[in-house]
Amino acid sequence: MTPAVNLESGSLGLPAVVIHGGAGEFALAPSSPGRHGRLEEGLARALGTAWELLVAGAPAIDAVVEAVALLENSGDFNAGRGAVATSEGKVETDAAVMDGATGLSGAICSATWPENPVRAARSVMALGGPAKGPVLLAGQGADRFCESAGLARRDPATLTCDGVVPISPSGTVGAVALDCDGHLAAATSTGGRLGKMPGRVGDSPVFGAGTWADDSTVAVSATGEGESFLIAGFAHRVDWAVTGGASPERALFEALEAVRARGGHGGAIVLAADGRFAVGYDTFAMARGWRDATGSTLRPIRFGP
Amino acid sequence: MTPAVNLESGSLGLPAVVIHGGAGEFALAPSSPGRHGRLEEGLARALGTAWELLVAGAPAIDAVVEAVALLENSGDFNAGRGAVATSEGKVETDAAVMDGATGLSGAICSATWPENPVRAARSVMALGGPAKGPVLLAGQGADRFCESAGLARRDPATLTCDGVVPISPSGTVGAVALDCDGHLAAATSTGGRLGKMPGRVGDSPVFGAGTWADDSTVAVSATGEGESFLIAGFAHRVDWAVTGGASPERALFEALEAVRARGGHGGAIVLAADGRFAVGYDTFAMARGWRDATGSTLRPIRFGP
Repeated sequence: MTPAVNLESGSLGLPAVVIHGGAGEFALAPSSPGRHGRLEEGLARALGTAWELLVAGAPAIDAVVEAVALLENSGDFNAGRGAVATSEGKVETDAAVMDGATGLSGAICSATWPENPVRAARSVMALGGPAKGPVLLAGQGADRFCESAGLARRDPATLTCDGVVPISPSGTVGAVALDCDGHLAAATSTGGRLGKMPGRVGDSPVFGAGTWADDSTVAVSATGEGESFLIAGFAHRVDWAVTGGASPERALFEALEAVRARGGHGGAIVLAADGRFAVGYDTFAMARGWRDATGSTLRPIRFGP
Repeated sequence: MTPAVNLESGSLGLPAVVIHGGAGEFALAPSSPGRHGRLEEGLARALGTAWELLVAGAPAIDAVVEAVALLENSGDFNAGRGAVATSEGKVETDAAVMDGATGLSGAICSATWPENPVRAARSVMALGGPAKGPVLLAGQGADRFCESAGLARRDPATLTCDGVVPISPSGTVGAVALDCDGHLAAATSTGGRLGKMPGRVGDSPVFGAGTWADDSTVAVSATGEGESFLIAGFAHRVDWAVTGGASPERALFEALEAVRARGGHGGAIVLAADGRFAVGYDTFAMARGWRDATGSTLRPIRFGP
């Protein structure tokens, strides 16, 4: 049984950051003692990292990249170091970043080189955006770009699981932030679906699907069954509903209903340029938290239905 | 100078097919004698192939796949055999198909194996769609899937241009069709941007960007500067505008304006389930044609401004 959509919303002061650590079946499987605590600790540290940057005046794009990089490095989420394996026991990662101030964006998919896929996505973004350079690099081309860009390489020993496909430690990670200048940004990083076919790409690295940021509307990061989020154009739906006057909460709900209509499940975080935010998911749990000057909120990660 | 948006629309009887052979700078470079005639001959043959299938009662998805496969095989378009080279003189192809009757979809990107990328996309579609299997495969994973699926392999000798980067022979190819049962389908295939960075992926293989089909609205295939079409969520914009009551022509115009606002240029074909169709582009020319029971229309491919 999958629960109905669980929604939560509010308004944050500027600056602000909202993060997630995935929505999915991980919530059903408390596999090891202390895991719950590690997930919450990772989320808290990522919120803290983003917050310190934001209050120091850093742009939102820096805050979301550093928050996601920390979650990638923790090994406790399905991204970066903790990315789950394909059907052949190998790791292939996807990530995207988008800067709402400039519209610049970058993403990689099916990459094996970068220690931090979110930094690789940011390096693609630095190529100049849609009018100047590529915005999405795949496979070997992505890996060679990472190498030539001087990005830190993932320990090759961690790319293969020697035939052992681990259970999913957690979900996709993502962050959205609003900086002191009122600019939005979004970042998403994932190892993809556990046991996926090699080469499989979901919504995370696709702008307007799993990742989106536009200062005139919202920043979005999604998590869940990526094919349905991709086909539904999830983040574009949120963006266009907000453009049409819907609240972030209503926009998120409607976009998630479009995913559910295609048989998909998952969740997302949405942050608007006026500080309104929303979190929604239809899985048993979604790891999430947010922070502004009034303090930090971390939702307990519930195991089991 | 780039011209304003050039629009053309009408209504076709059932069954019907609309195809394109790209919108772009190729129109500025009549590189060899007889090339104009070869492009038109290819389009005419592709229209004929799709038409014969449709009148025989074949589903729209078969018609668009066979029309695009023929254009891929001609070598005169930037897809399949004629795909342009990356900055390193190698060929990497992208393609997508979508069936408006079922919502099933499949795509590949940065692939080197398939002789016919559009057939590879269709084989991904056969995995079951968003609720069951992957819908987008990238790079080596895509190539290995093609091999295991028994798809014909591209002659490896044609994968490398020995350092010679040819001029773009023409553009991306695509087809949309409406079959005797009233179902829509779309297919797009491309070699991507001439001299692209290895691994670069544009809008063609992304559902809701360069390719889309939904029986309740429209089928779409786009061509042009893929980054802007991808970020703009081009085909989703067309689909949602038609859902909101816009004509296919108006929807295409508005979506192309969103691409232009991001600095991009190109064109698209749109076919609605009620037979209304539209073609639009803001480049100097777009190779295109359509066919229904009243006959075949092939627009001359104009060279130069």
